[in-house]
Amino acid sequence: MDKKKCSSSKEKCALQEILGVIGGKWSMSIIYALFTGKKRFSELERMVPNINTRMLVKELKNMEANGIVVREVFATVPPTVEYTLTTKGRKLEPIINELYKWGVEYVG
Amino acid sequence: MDKKKCSSSKEKCALQEILGVIGGKWSMSIIYALFTGKKRFSELERMVPNINTRMLVKELKNMEANGIVVREVFATVPPTVEYTLTTKGRKLEPIINELYKWGVEYVG
Repeated sequence: MDKKKCSSSKEKCALQEILGVIGGKWSMSIIYALFTGKKRFSELERMVPNINTRMLVKELKNMEANGIVVREVFATVPPTVEYTLTTKGRKLEPIINELYKWGVEYVG
Repeated sequence: MDKKKCSSSKEKCALQEILGVIGGKWSMSIIYALFTGKKRFSELERMVPNINTRMLVKELKNMEANGIVVREVFATVPPTVEYTLTTKGRKLEPIINELYKWGVEYVG
């Protein structure tokens, strides 16, 4: 989140900080793709519509730093990289599913 | 949402489209501020930490076009403009509150 001091109430700053972690249009789609289990980079790139490689790298780095996903590298040739949701990330499943239901009713 | 044809599954495109409507970091904070009732532009500007006037104008236009808020102009001198959540917007309240609770536990 923008490090500028948050002058508003504690509650609103907290929401702003939360949305800084998972509020991005791409992060929720990536989390949604990971609900069905660990994925490789190339799989995520196919699963998230309209995302490009640079954006996916950036989002995954941000999500790893925020403890939403873990990144595992396997010493295959070439090396394989897999991403999995942490417990913290998995707890978003009911919320994102509710958001999806809202959207199907009101946006689809 | 980027008009490029959404080649992935219908479900993932729907989520992408939904997040295009309310996925923005600012839109959820604006919706959160409107849960406590209609607000003027200047009130919203104070309530949403770190947002600037140009961004708030853009987000409110987008939200009005997507039927999340209604904009009412009152013929005072100078004219007053108030924003209110539509039924569609208000249905996001439990979802954003759950997101906030998740954040307080995992991000705060």
